[in-house]
Order: sequence, then structure tokens, then C-alpha cells
Amino acid sequence: MTSRRSFLKTTGMGLLAAGMATASTRTSYAQQSAESGNPKDTFRLGIAGYSFNKFKLDQALEMMKKVDVHYLCIKDFHLPMKSTDEEIAAFHEKCKSFGVTGYAVGPIYMGTEQAVDEAFAYAKRVGVKLIVGVPHKEVDKKKVESPELLKYVEGKVKEYDFKYAIHNHGPDNLPYSNAECIMNYIKDLDPRIGMCLDIGHNMRTGADPVADMEKYAGRVYDIHIKNITSPDKQGKGIELPRGILDLPAFVRMLRKVKYNGACSLEYEKDMQDPLVGIAESIGYFRGIMDSTR
Amino acid sequence: MTSRRSFLKTTGMGLLAAGMATASTRTSYAQQSAESGNPKDTFRLGIAGYSFNKFKLDQALEMMKKVDVHYLCIKDFHLPMKSTDEEIAAFHEKCKSFGVTGYAVGPIYMGTEQAVDEAFAYAKRVGVKLIVGVPHKEVDKKKVESPELLKYVEGKVKEYDFKYAIHNHGPDNLPYSNAECIMNYIKDLDPRIGMCLDIGHNMRTGADPVADMEKYAGRVYDIHIKNITSPDKQGKGIELPRGILDLPAFVRMLRKVKYNGACSLEYEKDMQDPLVGIAESIGYFRGIMDSTR
Repeated sequence: MTSRRSFLKTTGMGLLAAGMATASTRTSYAQQSAESGNPKDTFRLGIAGYSFNKFKLDQALEMMKKVDVHYLCIKDFHLPMKSTDEEIAAFHEKCKSFGVTGYAVGPIYMGTEQAVDEAFAYAKRVGVKLIVGVPHKEVDKKKVESPELLKYVEGKVKEYDFKYAIHNHGPDNLPYSNAECIMNYIKDLDPRIGMCLDIGHNMRTGADPVADMEKYAGRVYDIHIKNITSPDKQGKGIELPRGILDLPAFVRMLRKVKYNGACSLEYEKDMQDPLVGIAESIGYFRGIMDSTR
Repeated sequence: MTSRRSFLKTTGMGLLAAGMATASTRTSYAQQSAESGNPKDTFRLGIAGYSFNKFKLDQALEMMKKVDVHYLCIKDFHLPMKSTDEEIAAFHEKCKSFGVTGYAVGPIYMGTEQAVDEAFAYAKRVGVKLIVGVPHKEVDKKKVESPELLKYVEGKVKEYDFKYAIHNHGPDNLPYSNAECIMNYIKDLDPRIGMCLDIGHNMRTGADPVADMEKYAGRVYDIHIKNITSPDKQGKGIELPRGILDLPAFVRMLRKVKYNGACSLEYEKDMQDPLVGIAESIGYFRGIMDSTR
């Protein structure tokens, strides 16, 4: 929150200038947005493109505008990997017209060296320096460990100087189930290889997202915000205020470790008609942010 | 939030029972709702019926269900003053089927002793003990002070043992503009006459809702929650996260003074299509509540 003096300076409101400003006055969120968020926040709120799985880009951006969110993690169904440079430019132009910035791409599944090559080339053409990736091989539909592929990713990270955030996908989908598991794979690799901590999936493995955020802060480059119905494999996505994950505790930890990436809501309930649940969830996260500065 | 022990007791989840519960686990909101809210909260979240000005009762209740809110301040367009006892019973039955309780009636405008009589009789038949009221006379469409009418209301409050919360309506609509103004009228009256503090309209007069909540806590019997675009007559309603009123500060004050009534969102933006804004606003207020316990 800016000081009253700077608020006065910004708004020049007669009533306030007349000394009637009150302790209850704050810089409005609309004003904060214009300044790219509250200056006291080291992180920013976004939405993961997968939340709009059932919608075209225009519809997704319309929903983002409706809930006043300005950062999108770009999914390939909105911007295909094979897009031309012209198509990419048109994508950015469209986002811009809704006040939205695509800050990263992914999650992108990549099971071969060729797929890794394509993902990095795509990110470069899109103009982002963060890839949310899932680097594993698929053998007969079973995902298997692939340390050689991770070594290959490491080479690409050095080549491009991009960050690569491995997305954890819970107990259903080995090998990258939770933060600890990812860390075991990457601890000796280039530090630009880190994780996109999906706090819902993390908790579905029985892990503690708050403790993991503290433990692995130096390697968390993106976050998927969600809440879940139970801390186990049966846990389903739910509106942020209604689940068992203690999000105020999580946001306090973000502030403690001075996390400086995005927190992107990945909303996977009512995917055919998600806007109301997204609005409730975005509002909830903002309420926590405003209460924990 | 309940302790881990009581959480285990409530859920009996295998994973938790096996010692895998984490600091991030909390009682889910769904569980809290089933217990009528978090036991640490002295106040409860509701919606003011006026938010659904453009909708029939069924539509209003459908929206309340969608955002998981269980308390409604009943407006007469959903339950007319002249309803029969059968119609009132049907109203309550309908609310119950959506998990909603009508906790009060109003705001009801009453400019004559007869209107006051009707309002108290109506509230009694509805079965609530709280009337949100606007007791003034109208002369040639100009609202004028009516201390005699307030004395008459005082008699009714004694007769029925109801609480009567005068709604403040900002700088547009004298005589009840803000909390201080109401207090000046009621300070020597029966303490069951108090106010429904509309924090948005209060701030539109240049007053400080947080300071006023502290000052007049003993006489605040209902609250209309909203946010506004500016602290003056031009201030318009807006989604709760986006206005200039510092709601985290306000909720902290509610906790400090141990306010034990309802906080009802009165959402007056996009009244033809309010659900998304209501969802964002309800989520925001819950985020603050969860962050300030």
C-alpha cells in the first residue's frame, strides 16, 4: 500500500486534500494494477492457461479481464508449438488488448530430445524465458524416469539461459509427483532447472506445500495455485476458499522467502463453466495477499 | 481453524491418521460451513437481499448456493410486506432448500407510524428479531428529520424486544448519512436501536469505517459490506478487492471489537449480471477472514 502522501499525489482528490482522508483509505487495486501490482509484493497473481482448457483464447482473455488478472502461463492449445512468428505476434497483440501478458509457456510435455529442442525454440520465439516442462519418456503409456533427458535439458538451459520449471503432478503421474521428488532429480543440475510447484498435487502426495516452499524456495520458478478436497490421491480441485490447504499460511511463506515469480491459479473444477469459481478463487487469493503485507 | 487432533477426529482420514498430516492442512471450508462457520469467528458472512434487486428469489438463492453463502437479509421484493403466513412459510422452506437462512428484514423505509407498525408486525411474522430500517418522513420527496418517529420506533423496540438497525445511506440521502450522524440521533434512545453500518456509504461521506466501527461497536447490529471507487459522493460500488476501502483493516477491527452480527455483501455493480462480481467479492472477504483469525 502506498503512503497517504503518495496517494494524495496520485489522485489529487479534493476531499482527501482537505484533510478528510481516513485510516481506512488505501490505494485502490485498479490503481495498483496500473502500476503492475502492489509495490510491496515480490510476486504476482496469474492464471495457468490450462484453466481455460475448454475455451478459445478470446474467451479466456475475456474471463481474465472480468477478474482483473494480467498474467497468463501460455498453453499450447492457445498458441500451438508450430505457430509462425506472425501468429505469435498476433497472439501477443490479442493478449495486450485485454491487458494480459503471457509470462511463460507450459506445462509442455517432452519425452524426447527432439521435443526438448522444439520446446526451447518455441519459448524463444514466443519471447519468454521460462518454460514449465514435464521432461519424461513415455514407454507404452507408462511414464518412466529419464535422467539422460534431464541432462539434455540442462544443456539447453545453458545454451538459452532460460529457466526450466518442472511441474509436479501428484501421486497419479510418476516420476514428478511432488517437490521433494523433483529436487532429488535436479539437485546436482544447473540451478536454472527448478520447479513449477503445483501446491495441490504436492499435497495430494501427503507432502506439505508450506514446508516445501520454504525448503525449496531457491528452485521454485513458478507456482500453480489451487485448493483440494483432501490431502491424498482422492483430493479433487475446489474453489480456493473451500479446500483443506491453508492458503494464508502458504502466502505468508511466499512473503517470508521473498518469492518473486508468478502464482498462477490452475482451476480444474467446472472446467466447462469455470468463471464463477475462478472469480471466487482470485478474490480469495487477493484477500490473503492484502491481509498479509 | 480446529486443531489437528479435532481434524483427525472429524475426518478419520487414513493418510492423516498415519502421521502424514502437515502444517498446511486445515479444516476445509465445506466442513466449517456444515458447522455454521469457523468456531473462531464471532460474525458471519451473508448477502444483503438488495444485491439481487433484478432477480427472483429462486435465482438469488441459486447464486448464493453457487458462492456458498448461507445468510440473507430479506428484502421485500423477495418477501412482500403483505405476505400471508403461508407465503412466509413457503419462503423459509425455499431458502432452507438452498441452505440459506433469512436472518433479518430490510432495509425497510418507513415514514409514518403506520409504516413502523407494519414493519414490526412483518418482522414478527417472518420470525426475525432484527429490522434494518430507514425511519424518516418524506415531504415533497425530500427526506426530513423525524425525531418523533424515532421515539415511536423506540416504543416498538421495547414492545417487541427487537433490534432496530438504522441504515446509513451516504451523502445523497439525508438525514442518515453515516454512523456518527445516526449515533447523534439514537444516543439517548433504547440501546436496541442501533445501526446497520453501510461501510461504503459511510466512507462516501468522508468518514472512516474502521474508526467508526471501533467507536460505535456497541450499537452496530448489521453491516453492509462493499467497496467503493473514491471516498466521496462520486464513489461507486466496485468488486471488494478493487476499491479504496481497506477491508483487511476493517475485518481486523471486527475481530478486535468482537462484532457478533452479520457482514452482508451489498453488491451494487453490474446488478443485471452480478454473479461473477459477487463471487470475487465473497472470495475476497473469506480470504481476509481466513488471514486474520
